[in-house]
Amino acid sequence: MTTKTYAHESAGSIMATHFLAVPEHYSVKDAIQFLKQHEINGENKYYLYVTDPQNVLKGLLPIRNLVSASDEQTVSDVMQSKVVSVNVNMDREAVAKLMQQHDFISIPVVDDQGVLVGIIDADDVYDVVEEEATEDFHKMAPVGLLKTSLKDATVGLLFRKRVGWLLVLVFMNIFSGAGIAYFEETIEAVVALVFFLPLLIDSGGNAGSQSATLMVRALATGDVKLRDWTRFLGKEVAVASLMGLAMGLAVATIGIFRAGPEVAVVVALTMVVVVLVGSVIGMSLPFALSRLRLDPATASAPLITSIADIAGVLIYFSIATWYLGSVGMM
Amino acid sequence: MTTKTYAHESAGSIMATHFLAVPEHYSVKDAIQFLKQHEINGENKYYLYVTDPQNVLKGLLPIRNLVSASDEQTVSDVMQSKVVSVNVNMDREAVAKLMQQHDFISIPVVDDQGVLVGIIDADDVYDVVEEEATEDFHKMAPVGLLKTSLKDATVGLLFRKRVGWLLVLVFMNIFSGAGIAYFEETIEAVVALVFFLPLLIDSGGNAGSQSATLMVRALATGDVKLRDWTRFLGKEVAVASLMGLAMGLAVATIGIFRAGPEVAVVVALTMVVVVLVGSVIGMSLPFALSRLRLDPATASAPLITSIADIAGVLIYFSIATWYLGSVGMM
Repeated sequence: MTTKTYAHESAGSIMATHFLAVPEHYSVKDAIQFLKQHEINGENKYYLYVTDPQNVLKGLLPIRNLVSASDEQTVSDVMQSKVVSVNVNMDREAVAKLMQQHDFISIPVVDDQGVLVGIIDADDVYDVVEEEATEDFHKMAPVGLLKTSLKDATVGLLFRKRVGWLLVLVFMNIFSGAGIAYFEETIEAVVALVFFLPLLIDSGGNAGSQSATLMVRALATGDVKLRDWTRFLGKEVAVASLMGLAMGLAVATIGIFRAGPEVAVVVALTMVVVVLVGSVIGMSLPFALSRLRLDPATASAPLITSIADIAGVLIYFSIATWYLGSVGMM
Repeated sequence: MTTKTYAHESAGSIMATHFLAVPEHYSVKDAIQFLKQHEINGENKYYLYVTDPQNVLKGLLPIRNLVSASDEQTVSDVMQSKVVSVNVNMDREAVAKLMQQHDFISIPVVDDQGVLVGIIDADDVYDVVEEEATEDFHKMAPVGLLKTSLKDATVGLLFRKRVGWLLVLVFMNIFSGAGIAYFEETIEAVVALVFFLPLLIDSGGNAGSQSATLMVRALATGDVKLRDWTRFLGKEVAVASLMGLAMGLAVATIGIFRAGPEVAVVVALTMVVVVLVGSVIGMSLPFALSRLRLDPATASAPLITSIADIAGVLIYFSIATWYLGSVGMM
């Protein structure tokens, strides 16, 4: 019916262009006759669409209504005249959300003049919901948009899509390296501090990537809105404080045996702070990205880890320098 | 129609129990009369179901077929007798996959005797596809199964669901700490090695979590099967080698300025190896979990990071001890 091409990920790009349309003035008998004469191939077997002479969408006629109607009634008597339709340029994800909300099995697609140009069916929504989730998984990997199945992706394509983010993260790590270099004297005085470095910076990153992943998904499904940020901040601080205390206690036990009570105090204190800081960063970044009209899914675990690393290094060695200095260990 | 309760995440737990069923011997006229007398509320407006006196499912009758049929035909003449149905105990995710594959807008649910007990509709599939993706996101966070919206989750619930994995990761980090302690002399000889520790262990973890996330999603959508492991292993080695080389070059440039050419060589060599090892672990773990009948999504970024940390520490300081010893720096 049309050979026009529509924007990537628009309603037009996924709609089917085969459907049966009848005029309002048709009698129910005419409509049934029309239906008998036209086989509907595959899709759109459940509705007739009602249009005016300019093909503008006027109503929706469930075939079920034809069965219940009497022959003398007209199409306009039995059609639903309040029809939810979508514009051909609407984003396919928004279309899927709308159909999910209304539990629709199909939705008509119209152009800017209201002309019926196609139909989107349930099976298109299945695909969109799945593909959009896959896109978010890939963003959180983080890899670039593959636009092909993983099975078909070549070595060259995978390299190009993956190396970019990894190099960004390498350059972010220059800052944690610089942080460590700044505290070289502290490390030389108490080398045992290094034993706990991966544990502490990882824990901040892990707590942060938990928060980020929960938020990214909740924002994507609409469970959480942008305006909810302050409410979640309070909850996050409470949860993270509890987690930090539990993890701090756990790590203090290890610390005493491996490096003595002074280092154990430093490690436990650091744990509470890095878990709190990591969680708040992880929880806030998806909101911030969303506010900047960027995709919240950009807040991947590796990105959060790298940010938490920088914060973790500074927090750990600052606390160590202060506390170990005050107890006379350096 | 039934007040029986079905297992969590079974077909029975999501099906609707309102549907219209007619016997095979009905004439088309009878069926139309029956349809006119029974309003179908909300769902299942597109099919009549055909059952025998024991309520065993015999066929599916699209309402559209009733319109096209002549009054003298019987229901058994115009029904589809090959009906795809699902058992009431089938996993809801498998039901959703089946409906996606066949582009069904609804599917009948039967018990072990073939008795029609309910219907699953497109809107149930929308919800299942979305909820299953959310579950995978949460597993990869990693957090325990929330079973509630993030909005409604209390501080206590979030703490319990999140702290478990974080403590597991803390105890895994004992091994990387022990690895570092083992190389204490190397670190004391060349403290500058510590500057690059977070960068190197993170890079292994980042490359690994990319691979793991891609695999977890591809296994979940069915894009990749268990038997594809060896084929992906070869591809992964090729991609990871290229990434390791690019990142090794990048980090060598930083290394020369910050710590001299000898340390730069160690850091660059380590980068190539950790990216390769991290990627292969990240790519293989979801397959291994799947083979052990565990959920591949358990291979979260933080878990991969912790495993890659242990490997990274050992690789880094082994290379450093060997190379810096051979050039007489320690």
